[in-house]
Amino acid sequence: MLADQQILRIPGPTPIPPSVQRAMSQPMIGHRDEETSALLRVIGADLKSVFGTEQEVAIIAASGTAGLEAAIVNAVHPGEEVLVLVTGAFGQRFVKICEAYDIHVHVINYEWGKAIVPSEVQAYLQKNNAIKAVFSTFCETSTGILNPIKELSSAIAQVSEALVIVDGVSCVGGVETKMDEWGIDIIVTGSQKALMVPAGLALIATSKRAWKHIETNKRSRYYLDLTTYRDNLLKLTTPYTPAISLLYGLKQSLQLLKEEGLQQVYDRHDLLMRMTRAAIKALDIPLLTNDDYASPTITAIQPDDFDAVEFRKLLKNEFGLSVAGGQGHLSDKIFRIGHMGYCSPADVLQTIAVVELGLMKIGETIELGIGTAAAQRIYLSQGVR
Amino acid sequence: MLADQQILRIPGPTPIPPSVQRAMSQPMIGHRDEETSALLRVIGADLKSVFGTEQEVAIIAASGTAGLEAAIVNAVHPGEEVLVLVTGAFGQRFVKICEAYDIHVHVINYEWGKAIVPSEVQAYLQKNNAIKAVFSTFCETSTGILNPIKELSSAIAQVSEALVIVDGVSCVGGVETKMDEWGIDIIVTGSQKALMVPAGLALIATSKRAWKHIETNKRSRYYLDLTTYRDNLLKLTTPYTPAISLLYGLKQSLQLLKEEGLQQVYDRHDLLMRMTRAAIKALDIPLLTNDDYASPTITAIQPDDFDAVEFRKLLKNEFGLSVAGGQGHLSDKIFRIGHMGYCSPADVLQTIAVVELGLMKIGETIELGIGTAAAQRIYLSQGVR
Repeated sequence: MLADQQILRIPGPTPIPPSVQRAMSQPMIGHRDEETSALLRVIGADLKSVFGTEQEVAIIAASGTAGLEAAIVNAVHPGEEVLVLVTGAFGQRFVKICEAYDIHVHVINYEWGKAIVPSEVQAYLQKNNAIKAVFSTFCETSTGILNPIKELSSAIAQVSEALVIVDGVSCVGGVETKMDEWGIDIIVTGSQKALMVPAGLALIATSKRAWKHIETNKRSRYYLDLTTYRDNLLKLTTPYTPAISLLYGLKQSLQLLKEEGLQQVYDRHDLLMRMTRAAIKALDIPLLTNDDYASPTITAIQPDDFDAVEFRKLLKNEFGLSVAGGQGHLSDKIFRIGHMGYCSPADVLQTIAVVELGLMKIGETIELGIGTAAAQRIYLSQGVR
Repeated sequence: MLADQQILRIPGPTPIPPSVQRAMSQPMIGHRDEETSALLRVIGADLKSVFGTEQEVAIIAASGTAGLEAAIVNAVHPGEEVLVLVTGAFGQRFVKICEAYDIHVHVINYEWGKAIVPSEVQAYLQKNNAIKAVFSTFCETSTGILNPIKELSSAIAQVSEALVIVDGVSCVGGVETKMDEWGIDIIVTGSQKALMVPAGLALIATSKRAWKHIETNKRSRYYLDLTTYRDNLLKLTTPYTPAISLLYGLKQSLQLLKEEGLQQVYDRHDLLMRMTRAAIKALDIPLLTNDDYASPTITAIQPDDFDAVEFRKLLKNEFGLSVAGGQGHLSDKIFRIGHMGYCSPADVLQTIAVVELGLMKIGETIELGIGTAAAQRIYLSQGVR
C-alpha cells in the first residue's frame, strides 16, 4: 500500500481542504485582540447564510454533543415535558441527555433506516399537549436518513407551541437549511462534517421565540449557557477562550462554500448521493434506506451476502480507504460511505472503483466497473459542473 | 467543481505526501548547525540506496536542468567530443546545453516514442572513437519511454571508455536504479518527481572513474562544480546555503520509500503503469509508446479522433484533474498521465474514471467503466498490495 495515504470517506470527521489546513496554520493571536473580533464578524455573517437565519449563531469550543446538550439545558425548563423523535443513534443521544437531566421525555421510535412521519408526530402532540419541545435529527448519521425537517416543523406548528429543536450535525452546510423560513427554533451543528473543519466547534442558532424561553429558564448551566455566547457575540467576543485555529479554519471553509455558491454545494451533495446510490444498486448490494429520505451526505449499505466488518478492514488495509461501520444494533451489519464536505464526483468514483476491487478481494463475483459506470451515468445525466 | 481540489497527475511536480508537507513546515535551522549535518547524514545514506551506489550523492539547490548542466560542465573537458542519444525533449536539452558550451556534440535521434537501441550506439561509438561521454535519458518524460540504460551501459563499456551519463530526473526513486552495478558514471535526478518533494533540489551521483575525469577538468565552473559539493558532503556540510526546508522534505520522503520498501515502490509503479495502459487500451485510444519500453512513471496517450488540448482543458476545468500536454512537435497531439511518487492504485482508478467522464463530455462514445474495469483487472491479476 502507498505509505502515508488516507482516503477518508467516513461521515465525519471529513477531509480538510488544503486552504483550510493552511488557514489553521496561521500564528496564534490573542483571543481578546481585534483580530479575533474580525474573525468572529466574518464567520458570523457567513454562518447565518448557511443556517438560513437572521439570528446570531453561537460558537462553542466543544464537540457536537455539547451542542445537543446546550439545546436541551437551555430550552427545557425544569419540569417540562419533551418529545424526542428517534430514527437512530443520534436521536437516542437526545434521549440519553434528557434522561441525565431527569427530564420527562416522550419518545417516538422509528425503525432504523426509516424517516420521521410528520403526521404521526402531529397526532402524538395533539394527544400530549404538555410537550414543550420536539427534538429531531436532520441527518441521522447512523442510518443515512435525511428527515423531512421542513414538513415536520410545519406539522408541529399547526398543532402545538412546542419548540422545534434540530440536530443538524451531519448535514448543515451540505443540504439546504432554512431555519427561519421553516420555523426551526434551535439547530445545532459541528465543525467536522459538511463544514470541512476539524472537530472542536459546536455551532448553535436560536430563534427569537426560543430566546424568550431560554432567558426565563432557571435550569443550572454555565459553560453551555447560550445567552452568554449571544451577549458576547453581539460585542464580537466570546465568554471563554475560543478555539482560534478552528475559527481560522472555519472562516476559510465558509469562504470556500461562498465561492462555490451554497446552491451549488447542495447540488453537489445531491449528485454525490445519487452517484453513490446508483453504484451500490448496480453492484446489487442492498441500501439501508430508500431513495425518498436518503441523505445527500452519507449512504448506509447493508450487504446481505458478505461480512461488512471484514470488508471495511480490507478496504482500509489494502487501499487506505476508510468507510464507517454501523452503530447500535447495526454496528457489524452495515457500512457507511460519507460523501460530505470536501468530496467531489471524482472522489466518489474513486471510492466506488476501490469498493469494486474490495468486493473481488473478499471473494464476491461482480462485473468490474459496473458500479463506476452507474455513477458515471448519473454524473452525465445531469450535467452539473 | 469542488472548490480547492487539485488532482495532480502530471509527470512532476508530483503531489506531496502529508508527512512530507509537515516535515517541510519545521522551523528554520542554521545551515551551519549540527542539525543540518544530521539531516545530510540521514539523507546521504538513503540516497545511496535509491541511486544504487556507494558514492556520495551531491545535493544542489537548483532545478533538475542545473543537474544536467553540472554533469556536462564537470565531465566534459574542453575540446572533447560527446554523443547525445535523443529520444525526446529532454535528450534535446542535453544537446542544447552542450551547444551553449560549444562542445562538439554527436547526436543519434530516435523517433519520439521509440527507445534507444544499444547495439546502434555501440556501432556508432566504434566508428567514432573520439567520443568521451555518452548522454542518455533514463525516462524520457516527453514521450513516456523508459530507455534500456542497463543494456546501454553494458553495450557502451564493451566498445568504449566513454563516460555513461544519465538523466534520471523523471524516474529515479520510482524504477530500479543500480548505478554501480550497471556501470553508470553520472546520474542526475530532481526532487519533484518520484521523490515526492517540491522542485528545488538537483541530486547527482558520480562514479570513481568519473571523479578522476572531473578532477582534471579545466573547464570554468563555480556553483555547479561537483568537487566542492563532494568535498563538503564528506564533512557533512554544503559549499553554499542549502535549501533546508526541501532537505527536511527529502529526509521524510526517503523515509517513506524505505518504509514501503524500495522493491515494493518499484512494483507499485510497474502496477500503476500496467493499470493505466490497460485502461487506455480498453478505451481504444492509441498509446504513444509500446509496452516494451513503457515507463512505469508516466504514460503518453495520442488520441486519433479527439483534440488532446481541449480534452485536457475539460478535465482541468470540470474535475480539477491536471494531466500534462505534449512537448515539442507533439505538444498539442498527446496528453500524458503521470503516475509516479505519491500515487496509488486508487489514484489511477480515479484518474481513469474521470478520463472516461471527460471523453463522454467531449462527445466521444465509450462504454462507461470499461477502462476502469481493465485497470481493476490488472490490479486483481497480480495481487500486489
